[in-house]
Amino acid sequence: MTEMNGAESLVRSLIASGVDTCFTNPGTSEMHFVAALDKVPGMRSVLALFEGVATGAADGYFRMAEKPACTLLHLGPGLANGLANLHNAKKAGSGVVNIVGEHAASHIELDAPLTSDIAGIARPMSHWVHASISAADVGADAARAVQAARTPPGQVATLILPSDTAWTQGGQVAGPFTVPGRGHLDTAALDRAIAALDGPESLLLLGGCALTDAALEAAGRIAAQTGCALLSEWSNARMERGAGRVAVGKVPYPIDLALEALDRYRRIVLVGARAPIGFFAYPGKPAILSREGAEIIPLAGAGDDLAGTLEALSDAVGASGMAPSGVGTRQEIALPQGAATPETIAAVLGRTIPDHAIVVDESVTTGRGFFAATTGAAPHTWLNNCGGSIGYGLPVAIGAAIACPDRKVLALTGDGSAMYTPQALWTMAREQLDVTIVIFANRSYEILRGELTNVGVRNPGPRAIDMLSLSRPDLGWVGMAQAMGVDGCRAGDAPELEAAIRTGLSTPGPYLIELEC
Amino acid sequence: MTEMNGAESLVRSLIASGVDTCFTNPGTSEMHFVAALDKVPGMRSVLALFEGVATGAADGYFRMAEKPACTLLHLGPGLANGLANLHNAKKAGSGVVNIVGEHAASHIELDAPLTSDIAGIARPMSHWVHASISAADVGADAARAVQAARTPPGQVATLILPSDTAWTQGGQVAGPFTVPGRGHLDTAALDRAIAALDGPESLLLLGGCALTDAALEAAGRIAAQTGCALLSEWSNARMERGAGRVAVGKVPYPIDLALEALDRYRRIVLVGARAPIGFFAYPGKPAILSREGAEIIPLAGAGDDLAGTLEALSDAVGASGMAPSGVGTRQEIALPQGAATPETIAAVLGRTIPDHAIVVDESVTTGRGFFAATTGAAPHTWLNNCGGSIGYGLPVAIGAAIACPDRKVLALTGDGSAMYTPQALWTMAREQLDVTIVIFANRSYEILRGELTNVGVRNPGPRAIDMLSLSRPDLGWVGMAQAMGVDGCRAGDAPELEAAIRTGLSTPGPYLIELEC
Repeated sequence: MTEMNGAESLVRSLIASGVDTCFTNPGTSEMHFVAALDKVPGMRSVLALFEGVATGAADGYFRMAEKPACTLLHLGPGLANGLANLHNAKKAGSGVVNIVGEHAASHIELDAPLTSDIAGIARPMSHWVHASISAADVGADAARAVQAARTPPGQVATLILPSDTAWTQGGQVAGPFTVPGRGHLDTAALDRAIAALDGPESLLLLGGCALTDAALEAAGRIAAQTGCALLSEWSNARMERGAGRVAVGKVPYPIDLALEALDRYRRIVLVGARAPIGFFAYPGKPAILSREGAEIIPLAGAGDDLAGTLEALSDAVGASGMAPSGVGTRQEIALPQGAATPETIAAVLGRTIPDHAIVVDESVTTGRGFFAATTGAAPHTWLNNCGGSIGYGLPVAIGAAIACPDRKVLALTGDGSAMYTPQALWTMAREQLDVTIVIFANRSYEILRGELTNVGVRNPGPRAIDMLSLSRPDLGWVGMAQAMGVDGCRAGDAPELEAAIRTGLSTPGPYLIELEC
Repeated sequence: MTEMNGAESLVRSLIASGVDTCFTNPGTSEMHFVAALDKVPGMRSVLALFEGVATGAADGYFRMAEKPACTLLHLGPGLANGLANLHNAKKAGSGVVNIVGEHAASHIELDAPLTSDIAGIARPMSHWVHASISAADVGADAARAVQAARTPPGQVATLILPSDTAWTQGGQVAGPFTVPGRGHLDTAALDRAIAALDGPESLLLLGGCALTDAALEAAGRIAAQTGCALLSEWSNARMERGAGRVAVGKVPYPIDLALEALDRYRRIVLVGARAPIGFFAYPGKPAILSREGAEIIPLAGAGDDLAGTLEALSDAVGASGMAPSGVGTRQEIALPQGAATPETIAAVLGRTIPDHAIVVDESVTTGRGFFAATTGAAPHTWLNNCGGSIGYGLPVAIGAAIACPDRKVLALTGDGSAMYTPQALWTMAREQLDVTIVIFANRSYEILRGELTNVGVRNPGPRAIDMLSLSRPDLGWVGMAQAMGVDGCRAGDAPELEAAIRTGLSTPGPYLIELEC
């Protein structure tokens, strides 16, 4: 191979390590990487007009492709713009490789306008941070970044690339490097779990990769045999569900409902889930949601072999021959009439979710009833926001659609959430991604109205309410979508929503529905 | 005074310290602060739908009000979304007080979904970071944050507010605390400067508060007496200019032009400016822009008394009686005909900038000729991006308009730049801010096409070019504005631009012009 610069070795090493998709918003310091895209075949580059779109897309891509994409970001501020969705990716256990351009080493000390502490910015949202020293190191550094990103369950890796290491000759292609395997079964914990799972006061709480088809099937057998309940965490990076699959509910988000739902369980076995805690602390309410004195048995963590663990548990409790309990059956739901309410919207979704669709759910308050009502829908995959930073939904839908070009993507999002990353619409249009978006236009940060009460604020005044309101002026989502090349329509009630979703699903490319609710 | 909680003491202490404007995007952990807005009169709260709008607005507010506003941001990810414009504020020397909600102390250790290292996120973009320990501390912490933000020239201060410190009773109002004064004259440096400023091979390079009316007047006298040249840095946080004021050019942005412009100066005296360096490093080109061996005399830094320094220098060189050189005179410019080019746009601006307007300039490539062509416009104030992170213009225009409700604001921005923070349009509409926006719709990251050449990439291929192009699909800026409640129009050539700007300026509230160029 002829000599190459560091940037070319970077692209070649990423591809050698299995990273073939790049979500990018580049600047001057990343121009050699961009130029290398023409020299090196095999890297699909997707332009985003805001970095939070790129990082969120990488999160969605990992969840569906089960391997990392890379992002290409411009210096510290570009990385900063992507941090919130990296936070969500980190909490979801998604592997992401960030490539962040940096000034040439000689330039950093001059404190140019765009100089900032990139490693310091990266660290709070990254599991792995490294800055390349020379062009000869870049290839191996890239392979190590991929290795870190693929470490189970998936990690955020940030490689800082000084521009002189990109433009200097002497690049060396490296990788792939060996990725650590998933952790194996803890037999002592297995014994505790076997003893604990016994009747309706015991709960098997699932998270992460315990929500795949096979893992859920094993969990359903365990429930059938032991009489334990099954639940998942409130937010799950990816869950397989719908007709024919073991249906698993979620620990509710509202603090009082969560406390009530968990009060009945004296023993909780965790497989890929963490012990249930509140999203926020509230005055006078507990932060740990399980009943006082409940026994918590951490059987397997997010990085362990969860399907294997559940199979072993199924065998150990003598469930291997059982039919799993709680398998969702296809339901015929009548077309709901009248206004779009959480209930009628849920019914429409139960009717319209297409076979093997990917549902990206950032519906916040509107969607709290969607999950139960779609248990009997066609088989589908459901993605939640695990980090709580809103603005994740549209970007994640991009990544999911690019990872799975043959599947329909349904993105359900509140209007407040969608406004953090509306630029995602443009990328959907450019890439002609098959995403149908429903914007729940309630014109407020509705969740915060409830939270005002939860934190003990009684009778909030008009100035407080005004800070939670998205009216004055109303947002025109169809116009916004069209401005970014995405077709769409408004829907005013449940039948109109159903018709609009069917239009969106049958139209190639993205389609946006603004739902009055 | 009756007992109050920490949040109320925070709001009262901010107001006592002179902070009466809050740009906010709150969440659950900030609800007590929001609730306190109704109890405490005197804090104007402005809602942003994305945190980068809030932090950019605080930057623009400081530049024009000459005192800090506060922001109210939701946990680590909310702060993260605001970081890029905090970077710009920090580089501009703008004082900003960030209030960032945090989980209650007992909740942080549980590692809830939204938990992150807030201090770690804050530190790269903040001069001062502190987390309150108890409700009784919050008032004094707030007063200290304002003190830090007001420390000359202005600093970014981030106060982390755990929600239990906000909701617990026992808040104490504190402040204002004494703010450090600006640094005084360095007489040894003055002697060096007097010796250096002599004829056309000497340059007085101005930045920061050396660009006020009075400071420029003194600089003009010094130039008249010594024959030195005057320049400002490429990016200036705020410059007074136009007819009747001493006109000062800028060090050019393009590396080759900058090197050429500075090659003639053997002696450079810095007043509020830093020694000239390139924005980026380029292969085979110097990073330090002054000629080799040039004498650099740092007379006064950004935190010093720059107008006083220039007056002292003027006296010392015997210029106190002189008429300043380079005073801009009102120019009659003919209405340009034909296509919108950098030259015809500049001419339109020279004709239309209204008296005492504030021009927020993020025009990037399109605007490189604007500055020279508007020397003879009506007196106005010009704001640049000092941190280089694009997406600063529309948010800064919000802050400027709120600080100066009696002045017209003209925001000039590239389409690529505007797409980082388009949510700013909604806040402009809600607050009915008198901002006329011109979007230079060249449908590309045009600056990067030049930078490809500058970094040595020859013949970029189609995949590289595609990553710099904002077409496929074109952005519809008028539709985007209307979707957020802002009226607007398209302009296809120079006369249409002039008519549109006049419409925008004479229409109350915001108005957006999409200019084909």
